[in-house]
Amino acid sequence: MPKPKPRNAFYAQSGGVTAVINASAAGVIQTARRYRTRIGKVYAGRNGIIGALTEDLIDTSKESARAITQLRYTPAGAFGSCRYKLKGLEESRAQYERLLEVFRAHDIGYFFYNGGNDSADTCLKVAQIAEKMDYPLQAVHVPKTVDNDLAVTDNCPGFGSVAKYVATSMREAAFDVASMAKTSTKVFVLEVMGRNAGWITAAVGMADSADTPIPIVLLFPEVPFDEAKFTALVDAKVKEWGYCCVGVSEGLRGADGKLMAEAGTKDAFGHAQLGGIGPQIAGLVKERLGYKYHWAVADYLQRAARHLASKTDVLQSYAVGKAAVEMALAGGNAVMPAITRVSDRPYRWKITEASLTKVANVEKKLPRDFITRDGYGITAKARAYLGPLMVGEDPPPFKDGLPRYERLKNVAVAKKLDTPFEV
Amino acid sequence: MPKPKPRNAFYAQSGGVTAVINASAAGVIQTARRYRTRIGKVYAGRNGIIGALTEDLIDTSKESARAITQLRYTPAGAFGSCRYKLKGLEESRAQYERLLEVFRAHDIGYFFYNGGNDSADTCLKVAQIAEKMDYPLQAVHVPKTVDNDLAVTDNCPGFGSVAKYVATSMREAAFDVASMAKTSTKVFVLEVMGRNAGWITAAVGMADSADTPIPIVLLFPEVPFDEAKFTALVDAKVKEWGYCCVGVSEGLRGADGKLMAEAGTKDAFGHAQLGGIGPQIAGLVKERLGYKYHWAVADYLQRAARHLASKTDVLQSYAVGKAAVEMALAGGNAVMPAITRVSDRPYRWKITEASLTKVANVEKKLPRDFITRDGYGITAKARAYLGPLMVGEDPPPFKDGLPRYERLKNVAVAKKLDTPFEV
Repeated sequence: MPKPKPRNAFYAQSGGVTAVINASAAGVIQTARRYRTRIGKVYAGRNGIIGALTEDLIDTSKESARAITQLRYTPAGAFGSCRYKLKGLEESRAQYERLLEVFRAHDIGYFFYNGGNDSADTCLKVAQIAEKMDYPLQAVHVPKTVDNDLAVTDNCPGFGSVAKYVATSMREAAFDVASMAKTSTKVFVLEVMGRNAGWITAAVGMADSADTPIPIVLLFPEVPFDEAKFTALVDAKVKEWGYCCVGVSEGLRGADGKLMAEAGTKDAFGHAQLGGIGPQIAGLVKERLGYKYHWAVADYLQRAARHLASKTDVLQSYAVGKAAVEMALAGGNAVMPAITRVSDRPYRWKITEASLTKVANVEKKLPRDFITRDGYGITAKARAYLGPLMVGEDPPPFKDGLPRYERLKNVAVAKKLDTPFEV
Repeated sequence: MPKPKPRNAFYAQSGGVTAVINASAAGVIQTARRYRTRIGKVYAGRNGIIGALTEDLIDTSKESARAITQLRYTPAGAFGSCRYKLKGLEESRAQYERLLEVFRAHDIGYFFYNGGNDSADTCLKVAQIAEKMDYPLQAVHVPKTVDNDLAVTDNCPGFGSVAKYVATSMREAAFDVASMAKTSTKVFVLEVMGRNAGWITAAVGMADSADTPIPIVLLFPEVPFDEAKFTALVDAKVKEWGYCCVGVSEGLRGADGKLMAEAGTKDAFGHAQLGGIGPQIAGLVKERLGYKYHWAVADYLQRAARHLASKTDVLQSYAVGKAAVEMALAGGNAVMPAITRVSDRPYRWKITEASLTKVANVEKKLPRDFITRDGYGITAKARAYLGPLMVGEDPPPFKDGLPRYERLKNVAVAKKLDTPFEV
């Protein structure tokens, strides 16, 4: 029997990027390069799945080994990402068929899709339609999301670094406001990401620890905002400590269930574009309690802060990229490498295979027992979960005082179809 | 002739704190400890100069050598700071006399005041009134301000670290927005500190370098805002690069000279409390150009970010603390250790003695030739100045994934006067 010819792989980054998604890209590319008899070239989608739909593929074989290694230290999406959601198989039939047309033209036998809930769903549907159309394909999802809301996996690559960033930032700001509180700022408000799940908000609470106690009030998206209870709590903390820190989720909701910071615009997924609850909460403190405040909105800074990435997160991000290739080579299809926690102390983890049917479109919220009974803090259980994800430093190389991040050549693959496709 | 008895020193932190002001404190305390025959104890003011006025002194001799060494790695004011301005000698006579009363009661022979323009003025006035009242005192100002607006000194301790933070943050956010720009965010706005002088705004421009080009538009407090020119420039950058980054000073002013983000509240110095121009500028971009935006306001995060401090800044902060003690021992009075630049490449600097009469109440603005002719960027001259200040990393120790910062015992000195004083 003749040996099968190696087939090419297609890798794409989806949705909001992270400080470590490129570590997953490095894991995919470096691992594929070790299996040259099985995998030909790794093509990447320019600007995510749109690159596949428009046949705008990047040939990663044109990048040096050094450049791919440097990806491990580079934040954001090296090939570009996109917010472009493929819907149901019927509704988006033209897109799915076009994907397979492009895959066939470039002999793509492996599809690695690096994203969150939405892209897990897309990955699953691509696997289904390929099977239905008798197109041989191994479709593997590579988990990524700062929101930490994917099912099955214990945690999501990208989250540990945001957790480390927001906890460090809150601790630093707390030292600042504590210094100033006698005559000036008494309340500091930090707004963080996390649309529907309070994982990042919970991480802010890690700034407070047994050896560095800090008064922190957390406003989770899971806990409807109660103005009277909140202001009373802040007032009590200021009276006891002289100052108070507040961590608030961009997705804070009122008792009516409505987002308190609705900016009025929506992203391509139909989600509301948020931002601005931090200053609102600060203004409320001033109005109700009269305390001088400062507020910060970290926004992209929190998810792009590769300079402060968690080493655990970097290692896991790389590991899921590597495992995705190995799973595909082992015949895995419509699956995702999940991180499984073996133990908290010492922290041990391993990669296991999860079926995408259990991951797609499921949103894992912060468990109620991670939030203290009063609704404004984190429990010991939350601390045991969050702690290990933030451990370890893995600084990028610095040049002239600034992190030196990699920019790839991103050489285009010659088009074989060259037929237009509107996205 | 009998040897003179050692006299005590008083050290206080003033105004907004920085990531490295405690390195100056460590410089003062460690150096004083090496001259025990000349300097008795170093007392610190609890919450700055207010601690002296209310006779609330901290005995730093109760702190271990290890704790003082750790101060070098700890952001914010370890003894507390305050915003409390002493006015003219006539207007604030009661305060100045009270200061000397407390100094006399505790045999303070050395006064080290760690702050910006306002505290340089206070330090000078304390020297003057001590002389007038025949109280023997060496009053030395220790420079500190993230605003980098002190005269005589080439740069101010605290600034280099903020510069490194804002440039790193903008570079990281730029990589993020570049990844997303195809279908989502095209304009990212970062609001930074710097009330009247655009030094920090200029530092944002360092995110863009020859080997990492980034389209950045800067809005300096020195350049009146011109909506039409600004939006046209952002539009051109988006059309050329696919995205655009904007760094805006909290102190941006309109053509009428008025602050564009006047929050309506004022601090104890009578300065307006700012914040909020970032979202305003982002909203304007959306309204005029229709581009999707994100914005961040770093606020205290930028000046407290010890995890990303500039090593040059840490070394200089320590050096001015050490030099202040040495100057005082050499008989210096009403002076300040200034940083003098010897050369740009290689960067070399030394400490020189500056008269406080040349420093007090003078505000050093960003030179016009540091700003490009169009008013939206920085020149090669600015780069040559800013570059060396950001160089080098000096990370704090980490524990459990977070920086471990020092909290001192801050043991109170027994009161000798115990007379009330209202501040």
